[in-house]
Amino acid sequence: MSEFIMTLRCGNRSGIVAAVAGRLAAQGGDITEAHQFDDPETGMFFMRVAFRAETDAATLRAGLDEEVRRFGLDLTLRVAGARRKVLLLVSRFDHCLGDLLYRTRIGELPMEPVAIIGNHPREALNLTLMGAIPYHHLPVTAASKREQEAAIQRVIEESGAELVVLARYMQILSDEFSAWLSGRCINIHHSFLPGFKGAKPYHQAHRRGVKMIGATAHYVTGDLDEGPIICQDVEPVSHADTPDDLVRKGRDIERRVLARAVAWHLEDRVLLNKDKTVVFAR
Amino acid sequence: MSEFIMTLRCGNRSGIVAAVAGRLAAQGGDITEAHQFDDPETGMFFMRVAFRAETDAATLRAGLDEEVRRFGLDLTLRVAGARRKVLLLVSRFDHCLGDLLYRTRIGELPMEPVAIIGNHPREALNLTLMGAIPYHHLPVTAASKREQEAAIQRVIEESGAELVVLARYMQILSDEFSAWLSGRCINIHHSFLPGFKGAKPYHQAHRRGVKMIGATAHYVTGDLDEGPIICQDVEPVSHADTPDDLVRKGRDIERRVLARAVAWHLEDRVLLNKDKTVVFAR
Amino acid sequence: MSEFIMTLRCGNRSGIVAAVAGRLAAQGGDITEAHQFDDPETGMFFMRVAFRAETDAATLRAGLDEEVRRFGLDLTLRVAGARRKVLLLVSRFDHCLGDLLYRTRIGELPMEPVAIIGNHPREALNLTLMGAIPYHHLPVTAASKREQEAAIQRVIEESGAELVVLARYMQILSDEFSAWLSGRCINIHHSFLPGFKGAKPYHQAHRRGVKMIGATAHYVTGDLDEGPIICQDVEPVSHADTPDDLVRKGRDIERRVLARAVAWHLEDRVLLNKDKTVVFAR
Amino acid sequence: MSEFIMTLRCGNRSGIVAAVAGRLAAQGGDITEAHQFDDPETGMFFMRVAFRAETDAATLRAGLDEEVRRFGLDLTLRVAGARRKVLLLVSRFDHCLGDLLYRTRIGELPMEPVAIIGNHPREALNLTLMGAIPYHHLPVTAASKREQEAAIQRVIEESGAELVVLARYMQILSDEFSAWLSGRCINIHHSFLPGFKGAKPYHQAHRRGVKMIGATAHYVTGDLDEGPIICQDVEPVSHADTPDDLVRKGRDIERRVLARAVAWHLEDRVLLNKDKTVVFAR
Repeated sequence: MSEFIMTLRCGNRSGIVAAVAGRLAAQGGDITEAHQFDDPETGMFFMRVAFRAETDAATLRAGLDEEVRRFGLDLTLRVAGARRKVLLLVSRFDHCLGDLLYRTRIGELPMEPVAIIGNHPREALNLTLMGAIPYHHLPVTAASKREQEAAIQRVIEESGAELVVLARYMQILSDEFSAWLSGRCINIHHSFLPGFKGAKPYHQAHRRGVKMIGATAHYVTGDLDEGPIICQDVEPVSHADTPDDLVRKGRDIERRVLARAVAWHLEDRVLLNKDKTVVFAR
Repeated sequence: MSEFIMTLRCGNRSGIVAAVAGRLAAQGGDITEAHQFDDPETGMFFMRVAFRAETDAATLRAGLDEEVRRFGLDLTLRVAGARRKVLLLVSRFDHCLGDLLYRTRIGELPMEPVAIIGNHPREALNLTLMGAIPYHHLPVTAASKREQEAAIQRVIEESGAELVVLARYMQILSDEFSAWLSGRCINIHHSFLPGFKGAKPYHQAHRRGVKMIGATAHYVTGDLDEGPIICQDVEPVSHADTPDDLVRKGRDIERRVLARAVAWHLEDRVLLNKDKTVVFAR
Repeated sequence: MSEFIMTLRCGNRSGIVAAVAGRLAAQGGDITEAHQFDDPETGMFFMRVAFRAETDAATLRAGLDEEVRRFGLDLTLRVAGARRKVLLLVSRFDHCLGDLLYRTRIGELPMEPVAIIGNHPREALNLTLMGAIPYHHLPVTAASKREQEAAIQRVIEESGAELVVLARYMQILSDEFSAWLSGRCINIHHSFLPGFKGAKPYHQAHRRGVKMIGATAHYVTGDLDEGPIICQDVEPVSHADTPDDLVRKGRDIERRVLARAVAWHLEDRVLLNKDKTVVFAR
Repeated sequence: MSEFIMTLRCGNRSGIVAAVAGRLAAQGGDITEAHQFDDPETGMFFMRVAFRAETDAATLRAGLDEEVRRFGLDLTLRVAGARRKVLLLVSRFDHCLGDLLYRTRIGELPMEPVAIIGNHPREALNLTLMGAIPYHHLPVTAASKREQEAAIQRVIEESGAELVVLARYMQILSDEFSAWLSGRCINIHHSFLPGFKGAKPYHQAHRRGVKMIGATAHYVTGDLDEGPIICQDVEPVSHADTPDDLVRKGRDIERRVLARAVAWHLEDRVLLNKDKTVVFAR
């Protein structure tokens, strides 16, 4: 008996749930968790089903061919809990990176970190928790961005990474690279978007005198800090907090927001809905 | 075209979702929202479906007879948004009562307040927002509790109230009355249960020196403050807060927690799962 | 024995606390609560002291003359808990207004509502809790804005209102009127600023696909939604929330954020620090 | 110019603030942050002052001798930011330990970890971030508790540790050892006290069906999970969360709650007030 996770997206039409549930039942599938969402604005339908079955993913996928055709399903199906290959990028601040690696180490994140790329030398980091994970020091300047991104792309292709996580990686990806990574690159921006986009958001927040700061995990797109939002959280701050206090308080929010977003993505809980996300969280 | 809300509970068996979704589709039902939950501990299955259909509730219910029998479904089906009859009880503090009445007035709560019962005179309250809702002043002492509860019961029976809300009604219901009200009486307890049960929870909290206070909405059972929890929320407090400050801060938490719980109950979003609740919230 | 609240602002210099505390002690003052803040960026110093003394406010103020001169203190001193005159403005949505009036009624807010001004007729509101408070229906169009604001100004002057609260009053005040009201007009904007300024912020939030919505209470200035922020709070939302759901969830955030801000202002807990506020909350 | 942190506690009497502030000013002290609290119930006064001065701690302390005598001050004064010696204890789950060590490594926590004591072998842990910090494997059974605690005590005495942190150290300290550690031993209990004391609190929470879980950092006393609370925080949970989900979600709350409590203690922001704490946080 194996556990599977299936997701599907399609234009909404009558009878999808009945058809899909019926097909799963017919294949001996036993649903353990199911979520669905109808977007009345776009007419799109989204579903995520966790189920147990005696068979294998390929057989199940084949068994759903008719529904895929009939409803035009954009379907994914994989074994639940399978570790997925992830490339992590970092700059000078490694709190998010260390947090993701620790969660992976204790088995909380179903991630196989294929490599870590940093634009600073490894010695600049505070972590030692990298074990056998290859670290690539790929410095970058305005002039060398294209080559550096090509090098990152080679690592992704050679490693088979399915997901790229910008774990406080502070370089702005080019439009082309962002497009190539569409839907599979998560960034943590250290503000509560849409406020304080761009550089030094904590300093922007301090100047504005907001009474809460936050962090936002989102998919990277060509527009800086504009991509579909996956997860956000906040903490209260006061007039007494200096920019350094905001940076300090912000680290904790960034860590948990990025970790939730990455976990949800790896568990197929996040479905793209144009400029937004549908998140079947737990 | 009408919108309906259906809930069901049963021992979990393979094929329920397929059967129910299939039956709804066959009756021309168009699902707009669906939630389900499998309790692995008890083997119970819970579902809530919002759907549109051209037919009426009676026809739909009849159409599900086969599934009801086949799976042993504990099923409810009603027209979405229908106002449901509610009896409200209050003592001296009317912030929760006023909040529920205001939400009803603006159409946010699908509630038809059939009466308000208070153990203090109407003049003792701060609200004037009662409009045409009958107010019954039913004082009570240790000696008169049985009669007073019988009077409350008569109001419930005569009015057809489906739900009783203890909106900071401070009298403890007898075991018999609690049992009679099982599953249809919501209380707001002004602490974060299971901490600080019983009397003067804010004073208990102040003595303990907790750094957050909360409120809990729960179904009333024979055991004081032990019933299935529906909703909880908290606010931070500090050493500087006196018991009066906790009471003041607590009012806001009580209002929103009770309002959410009542709204969820009226929208059939809360299903009883022995000593706990399944809440299909939005 | 009376209780007093004193606030002071000045350029920061050595010895202020010692001098002021010393002077209060010399006048028989017994400090019950004290907060201070040094803004290293602007070099400004802020203080709020609650204290008991046998004397009266005038005597106390005179007794502080030397410190006022010596340090250039911008000082306020009043009897604690004194009810202060407030003018409330509202448009169609009266949840914030009703909440402020209820808190006043039960003695939680030290407010004397001198009048309510609405740009819609009284009958358009859901509240009946206005009691004897005069309601002025002052409709406004683009063409009549100047006159209407002049009428509001007359009400302020005649009533002696110290504070104006825009309780979901949806008209944008002119630059001149905003300037005239500088430091004494609080608005509740139904978004988590600086995101989603201007009109229909919940619809903007829905489009952006944020995972939390919020509300911001701030002092009104000439720039729309740019004034010094007093209080903010948020609630999580999901892909399943329609714009109407955001409006509904937002009501609760707006109510508690505006109520906190107004309470803090009335208790002299908010001091202006250029474009920001210092909030000595409890 | 050095920065100092001074705290004081005493029975409340008129003139303390004036006297202390005056004395600091006389010694050339420049206050940068100050908090005070009057406990009306116990008549105790608490104060924390951060200030800059050209002199040294010993001179400052001597200079306050008169005030110490006059008011019966329980006074502490130390150089701000000085790293303080801390002994960390851990069992099998090292998420809190790793988090504290990372924060120390990046300079966020002013801690000098003198040793780590675990009742499991070092190899059982997931961390490698221990660097040069000595790890003592001190297993314990019911029979060997006294000796094991004596061994821990020796490490404390030899290392000069000022603070002991039970970072998910799951052994219950004996009454004697708890008493010896009074006021200098912080534990993280993985529930929102006073709910769910003792063993397996997440499983207790799951059984009760609460809708939020939390963690509590508190000083250890003879009574299990009864000591003065320093910090608490919560996260929402739902019917869908299994006990393992609660454990997972709880890890994040435990980490941030313990880290805040330890940081506050090391910065002299926590003052004991009998069974409670006064926390002058930032």
